[in-house]
Amino acid sequence: MHDTDDTAAPTNRLRVACGVFGCAGAPGAADVVYHGLHALQHRGQEGCGITTYLDERFINERHPGLVGEHFSNGPLCERLPGQFGIGHVRYSTQGKSVGRNLQPLYADLPGQSGLAIAHNGNLTNARALRELLNDRGSIFTSESDTEVLLHLAAHSDELRIEMRFLDGLRQVEGGYAIVALSANKLMAARDPLGIRPLVLGWMQDTGTPVVASETCALTQVGARFDRDIRPGELFVTDGDSHKSYEITPPRPARTCAFEYLYFARPDSVVDGVQVYSARKTMGRILAAEAAVDADVVVPVPDGGVPAALGYAEAVGVPFELGIIRSHFVGRSFIAKDQSARTRKVHMKHAANAAAVAGKRVVLIDDSIVRGTTSRKIVELMRKAGAREVHFRSASPRITHGDYYGIDLSDPKTLLARTHPTDAEMAAALHADSVGFLSIDGLYQAVCDAPRDPARPQLSDHYFTGEYPTALTDRDAGRADRHHQLSLLEEVD
Amino acid sequence: MHDTDDTAAPTNRLRVACGVFGCAGAPGAADVVYHGLHALQHRGQEGCGITTYLDERFINERHPGLVGEHFSNGPLCERLPGQFGIGHVRYSTQGKSVGRNLQPLYADLPGQSGLAIAHNGNLTNARALRELLNDRGSIFTSESDTEVLLHLAAHSDELRIEMRFLDGLRQVEGGYAIVALSANKLMAARDPLGIRPLVLGWMQDTGTPVVASETCALTQVGARFDRDIRPGELFVTDGDSHKSYEITPPRPARTCAFEYLYFARPDSVVDGVQVYSARKTMGRILAAEAAVDADVVVPVPDGGVPAALGYAEAVGVPFELGIIRSHFVGRSFIAKDQSARTRKVHMKHAANAAAVAGKRVVLIDDSIVRGTTSRKIVELMRKAGAREVHFRSASPRITHGDYYGIDLSDPKTLLARTHPTDAEMAAALHADSVGFLSIDGLYQAVCDAPRDPARPQLSDHYFTGEYPTALTDRDAGRADRHHQLSLLEEVD
Amino acid sequence: MHDTDDTAAPTNRLRVACGVFGCAGAPGAADVVYHGLHALQHRGQEGCGITTYLDERFINERHPGLVGEHFSNGPLCERLPGQFGIGHVRYSTQGKSVGRNLQPLYADLPGQSGLAIAHNGNLTNARALRELLNDRGSIFTSESDTEVLLHLAAHSDELRIEMRFLDGLRQVEGGYAIVALSANKLMAARDPLGIRPLVLGWMQDTGTPVVASETCALTQVGARFDRDIRPGELFVTDGDSHKSYEITPPRPARTCAFEYLYFARPDSVVDGVQVYSARKTMGRILAAEAAVDADVVVPVPDGGVPAALGYAEAVGVPFELGIIRSHFVGRSFIAKDQSARTRKVHMKHAANAAAVAGKRVVLIDDSIVRGTTSRKIVELMRKAGAREVHFRSASPRITHGDYYGIDLSDPKTLLARTHPTDAEMAAALHADSVGFLSIDGLYQAVCDAPRDPARPQLSDHYFTGEYPTALTDRDAGRADRHHQLSLLEEVD
Amino acid sequence: MHDTDDTAAPTNRLRVACGVFGCAGAPGAADVVYHGLHALQHRGQEGCGITTYLDERFINERHPGLVGEHFSNGPLCERLPGQFGIGHVRYSTQGKSVGRNLQPLYADLPGQSGLAIAHNGNLTNARALRELLNDRGSIFTSESDTEVLLHLAAHSDELRIEMRFLDGLRQVEGGYAIVALSANKLMAARDPLGIRPLVLGWMQDTGTPVVASETCALTQVGARFDRDIRPGELFVTDGDSHKSYEITPPRPARTCAFEYLYFARPDSVVDGVQVYSARKTMGRILAAEAAVDADVVVPVPDGGVPAALGYAEAVGVPFELGIIRSHFVGRSFIAKDQSARTRKVHMKHAANAAAVAGKRVVLIDDSIVRGTTSRKIVELMRKAGAREVHFRSASPRITHGDYYGIDLSDPKTLLARTHPTDAEMAAALHADSVGFLSIDGLYQAVCDAPRDPARPQLSDHYFTGEYPTALTDRDAGRADRHHQLSLLEEVD
Repeated sequence: MHDTDDTAAPTNRLRVACGVFGCAGAPGAADVVYHGLHALQHRGQEGCGITTYLDERFINERHPGLVGEHFSNGPLCERLPGQFGIGHVRYSTQGKSVGRNLQPLYADLPGQSGLAIAHNGNLTNARALRELLNDRGSIFTSESDTEVLLHLAAHSDELRIEMRFLDGLRQVEGGYAIVALSANKLMAARDPLGIRPLVLGWMQDTGTPVVASETCALTQVGARFDRDIRPGELFVTDGDSHKSYEITPPRPARTCAFEYLYFARPDSVVDGVQVYSARKTMGRILAAEAAVDADVVVPVPDGGVPAALGYAEAVGVPFELGIIRSHFVGRSFIAKDQSARTRKVHMKHAANAAAVAGKRVVLIDDSIVRGTTSRKIVELMRKAGAREVHFRSASPRITHGDYYGIDLSDPKTLLARTHPTDAEMAAALHADSVGFLSIDGLYQAVCDAPRDPARPQLSDHYFTGEYPTALTDRDAGRADRHHQLSLLEEVD
Repeated sequence: MHDTDDTAAPTNRLRVACGVFGCAGAPGAADVVYHGLHALQHRGQEGCGITTYLDERFINERHPGLVGEHFSNGPLCERLPGQFGIGHVRYSTQGKSVGRNLQPLYADLPGQSGLAIAHNGNLTNARALRELLNDRGSIFTSESDTEVLLHLAAHSDELRIEMRFLDGLRQVEGGYAIVALSANKLMAARDPLGIRPLVLGWMQDTGTPVVASETCALTQVGARFDRDIRPGELFVTDGDSHKSYEITPPRPARTCAFEYLYFARPDSVVDGVQVYSARKTMGRILAAEAAVDADVVVPVPDGGVPAALGYAEAVGVPFELGIIRSHFVGRSFIAKDQSARTRKVHMKHAANAAAVAGKRVVLIDDSIVRGTTSRKIVELMRKAGAREVHFRSASPRITHGDYYGIDLSDPKTLLARTHPTDAEMAAALHADSVGFLSIDGLYQAVCDAPRDPARPQLSDHYFTGEYPTALTDRDAGRADRHHQLSLLEEVD
Repeated sequence: MHDTDDTAAPTNRLRVACGVFGCAGAPGAADVVYHGLHALQHRGQEGCGITTYLDERFINERHPGLVGEHFSNGPLCERLPGQFGIGHVRYSTQGKSVGRNLQPLYADLPGQSGLAIAHNGNLTNARALRELLNDRGSIFTSESDTEVLLHLAAHSDELRIEMRFLDGLRQVEGGYAIVALSANKLMAARDPLGIRPLVLGWMQDTGTPVVASETCALTQVGARFDRDIRPGELFVTDGDSHKSYEITPPRPARTCAFEYLYFARPDSVVDGVQVYSARKTMGRILAAEAAVDADVVVPVPDGGVPAALGYAEAVGVPFELGIIRSHFVGRSFIAKDQSARTRKVHMKHAANAAAVAGKRVVLIDDSIVRGTTSRKIVELMRKAGAREVHFRSASPRITHGDYYGIDLSDPKTLLARTHPTDAEMAAALHADSVGFLSIDGLYQAVCDAPRDPARPQLSDHYFTGEYPTALTDRDAGRADRHHQLSLLEEVD
Repeated sequence: MHDTDDTAAPTNRLRVACGVFGCAGAPGAADVVYHGLHALQHRGQEGCGITTYLDERFINERHPGLVGEHFSNGPLCERLPGQFGIGHVRYSTQGKSVGRNLQPLYADLPGQSGLAIAHNGNLTNARALRELLNDRGSIFTSESDTEVLLHLAAHSDELRIEMRFLDGLRQVEGGYAIVALSANKLMAARDPLGIRPLVLGWMQDTGTPVVASETCALTQVGARFDRDIRPGELFVTDGDSHKSYEITPPRPARTCAFEYLYFARPDSVVDGVQVYSARKTMGRILAAEAAVDADVVVPVPDGGVPAALGYAEAVGVPFELGIIRSHFVGRSFIAKDQSARTRKVHMKHAANAAAVAGKRVVLIDDSIVRGTTSRKIVELMRKAGAREVHFRSASPRITHGDYYGIDLSDPKTLLARTHPTDAEMAAALHADSVGFLSIDGLYQAVCDAPRDPARPQLSDHYFTGEYPTALTDRDAGRADRHHQLSLLEEVD
């Protein structure tokens, strides 16, 4: 899943939409949110924002870039006072991630009540709703589908803010984890299938509630994990008392498989499953399904490491750091001559000849998307003297796009589509062989059971083409071109 | 009108809301707008923005700070391509002028048509409309009353964008000069009384239309002045053909007197009146009405210069630059001890002892608001050795607030309120005497006729308390507290 | 003296080298220096720096840009603590004014004593000395001739820092005003002829000494003017006791005439002469020498204003603000087409048609250097409808370069060289006539006496070619190319 | 070697001085240097600089921060043209790493020849030389000991630049790797013992020479490794022809042991030894010397990973990612209350409960310096449910300071000093046991032989107190206080 082309635009990268965090009744809420977002930074690095509430005012700060660049300086809790706060980290999924598209979004609703909202995921009927709202006179000032929810809440006939919000949630479809802040109220909502993760915990010192995309953020802020927000649940709290509403009737979560494969931090527990353990098991099952004779098992860092450990344990072949990953920024400008172009190929990965020269290498990665990086890494291994290079993916073949917040780029460019057989793909990657985890292998690793075709336990459409929800916008052919506005703001 | 307290927060300053500019069918529109805004910079220095339109996309750039800081670098017309553009310079009239409150504003309207809008002035029923719209489900994401207009256009039953806009304009009251941009259309609207100025010109090379707050911007971009936009007129152009709509039936302009006194650049012509000449005449009439024996006439720069020239010519006393004004930024932090405090008093003005020592000085300023700066300047003169210091204001006593885009601070703090007689005011300023232009004197200078009490030729409520429009929000006691959101964004 | 070409590189502008300021024994020295530099900002706007001394440490902050942009934020006296401080504002006279070329410069001298130094002026034997020092093993890390003084002090056989510094000063030639800071000592030195100005004052609250390029800076910080630093004097103070050394035997000052004409702020008093009064007198004498029939007298702002007032008073013709100057930044990028080029011509000056249309205009400027701006301003007047345009310079014809800190650009491009007769020059400027103040007229205005050819009372080489000092480097043909280093640093 | 205290000032961290890179005769030298520095970024992250040479000019750019932040934008080879270039990445070892202390340094030498220099290491007689040079009249403008070398070259009696440089090198003692650039000449020098590493390679396309701190930089730029620069060698090249001088007679390298333990990138080869393999062997030998019964082997990332792999292989216990390291910036401000303080403890490391809960854990780190981080990591493991926590260091006990470019903080605070027995240290870290690699074990891993007490094969003073060179400054008690200057420059 490292289909990053170092030399090209960042659009080739697989991206998850975002991470969200919120707390209520916590002294110094902004500081709690800051630390929570820091632990969720892997979910989005192109923008961040925090909104707090105090004395009938919402205070909002949003910036392009990393949490630690913007919220670690100066007296944060003076800038953003209050005991209620929500925050967001984002990947841009569309165009330039600037100004108006950062979250939390905010709006004044009827009755002079304010609502701030932060969203991970994607609504599959946002454009249909947008057109409807547009026809009713609503105007849109951001490109985000999150704005739709603010309008739906504004148009609700309900009086109380949480009922308005619930009203809105009942009209949207798709995958989402949402935190929202109104006057002295924190709300957290998860989509009816639980595609996107969202967890609830309690601060160990104050006993007040915290919600976050992943458990690792709870640990970071000193909160105890309680439970996952249930699929279709809207959780509302004023810090002291709490109430849950059903957006839809409860059902078991059908979590996005990619959370286990790639997005979640290995130390998180998602819907009851330890991510690190699941990944190691994927490696073990991959070994059972697609082993190859080799001298060393080399992970493609960082994503492939747990699966490679599992694979190496299963086959009894040494695990070696055959690829060194640089964690430093390494953007390259356009190279004019061949010589310069060569230099630019690998700014993120370097071969460790000590580990691979003269060896038969089996590379373990978490996935193969477009194959651009995979091919380069195979080449790196060969240049470093590897005798054979085999490529194994700890996820099944990715053949379909996503509509719930993952940017898989144009499905037509997916390598598993353009090169449907293992032999074709091996040729494309210049690898001696390739192999994939099976779909049942994936389910076995995550759910400890094969896939139930009648009611699949996970969202797995990128592998199967079976989308768990309606795709209203896609089916209506609603194009993406409603984004009429390019925004460049404050980017001094 | 220089009631700036150098050492204190900028809120003591009199501020005009903004300047606007637009062009249609002009190659390199962004460059034309940039130069137009540069010539309007005196109308607002805290933020600026330009929106252009090309190929079904609106491109928007907004920044805190000066036009020349943000739009003079790099290939402007590549960043902001197109032949249609509007722009805005602003003073913040409320809170921090950041991010979301900068203009032009933009919204997607029904029918997927976009509308960008930039506004100088203030709507006196914005809050009433906002509540109404709120009740109809509209949400507000900025603090600006301009956003109301976008919602009104969105809720209109009309189909064509200009008719929708017209619909909206017919519902608002107050003073405004607005430029708006839709797909391949530039629109310009002026309030029914013509309180805020707006002019139309034609590019001398391409013959395409240009609109601007003042004629000086036409000159800057190489355009020929044609006429003032008429009170109550909505002018619509696609660059080739043009059409005017009546928001309200036509009537003579009742221009804001402060445009002549203070806001407009001296080389502009506002509703047929040369600003520079009017100011000189004010000085001459002031001399007739309130002359005093003196050795030198000293203007408070820069605003008082033309009136001081007129005054000096009338009384035959030498005009001297007795006060030197620094044009450099001179913010001061809080002084802890008395000695440091003394240093900070005058970072903007310095006495020129060569011109005033041992002399009887008559100071001419364009106005007196709170008197803070006036008092300091009198003190400066005395310290520099002036024998007598007389203060003359080239405008009448300011006794009432404004609701059309001028921030006169709290009316209760106006010096003419707290010190109603000349003697009291002289004592407050430590001046030997004070004097003001009469209201009829003002009219004589601008309109060449005394004030017509039945139908005053100017807006003059700050002097008379007679407001030219309804003040719906004020009369309904709609407080200012609906601004629930503090925004701090992108302020790296 | 406004030969700025708005559209071209800034190299066409006449530039004075710098302004300097220092204080000793003043609590919050950095704050005092900050305010002093603010009042000297007109002497240099491309860079600024402050050095203070406390507890055996020198603390140095230098920045490109304006004083108010960098030293008005945050707790200045915590960043730069101490009771001793010096500061500098600079124009770059060579290349890019960045990083290493900003002042104050600092060096560790023998005996572990530190010396910080800030310099206005130019040394005419700096390169000869540099070569000598180079041969003795000194290395140079800046392009500044100021660095030579640090090396000379370092090589001195004297023990005490002020004697080392004096030793160095005795070896240099040229024009300079220098402030220097060693451990608990402030030093101020002026060149033997007093070409560059430097004044001494005393803080009114603490009675401690202050030195500055001009008296206006004394006033700003609340100091009482005492006297000019004498030509050839080195003044040394520890805040309590003071001592003067003679670099050379005392003689009357031969101040740079341009200080009176252009550089000094009008409210300053330079070597006993009120600048504002001298300029007005120049205008009066210009009227006597070169009057022309006209309807209005129009100053080229801001430099031409005092002379225009004097001229207008003398001839009894109205003084009018026929040109409006924008004080906002107005950089223009390269224009591609003719239409855009037209827009860019005048971003700094605008004609005020109300004052000049149909009139015979006499323009008064403080000088004519290359004529670029003068020609544009004549054109502006004509476009605004002036019937006749006459140009009068309140200084004599500039025919020679300067070697003491003024950048007059290549002497071969001086308009008075390329167009030696008034008629030729009028044709070049498209003016109906031109005229200049005579050299004796200048002396009369400044010195109240004609020029004494035996011992001229001023430095006037730009008019006469008579240089007051040796020009060692020039005469030895020492080229400018020793600057091998381009520095670009910290320019985030 | 991760003694970073997340919550405290960065001074607790072990730091290597720098990385250097240079190339000659390479088209687009700046681009080559940029990529080389990117691969050396792990050696210093607080500042970076590149100097190139073209047509008798040196062009220099230096910035605080990362290489990728400053040199990846815009047309680098236009900003820094030429075929000769050197570059530097640095850790600040003293005070604030700003402005003047960044490298390369530059100076004009006698004969108008320029010399730029970049330096990794530390000179142990720099202060003695500085005093000597000071007495001869040299002035110092930076705090860097590198500046001494420029002065020594300047004072040399030799004529040719490389002989001058050689002259200087023969007078200094200590550990260093230096690249220098004069007109069309690249020079590279390594200290007589080869304490700091420096390698030579050849561009594969142009066949021109490249020098770098580590081989990983050669690979990054597409260069073939040739050989290590020999201890005491000065290598000089004009791109075509090359020559080596002996600073001192050749002898085998006595490389800094920390290069193998910590500094070098695992894929580098230092003086013939593969760093990755050496680290794994350290782990294996550590297992032989100090094994403990455990269920999982957990590396302290990233430094401890290779040794942990070796250890795990040796003992046959699973290697698990029991600690997750965040690669995002996570600065924390000062926490006011206990609750906030808890949040801040671990922003860099998180426990992975899935791997350690209920297990007996053996932690493998590359070293223990002050123990601050080690203690926190032990605590993390316990909180995550580890049953036992054993700590093993893959380097011997650190008991002495370094004088060759490594900042080991105050030796008195080294944990191995304050807690000399394993039992005491285990108590201090709250670990069940601690253990260290023996010194002979270290030699065995790196040199495949035990330590030769007569002529140790490595520099190992931090473990043994046997310093390989004279320590002139230390022995003379030359204090650090000559740094009289605090510099804050250009830090907008």
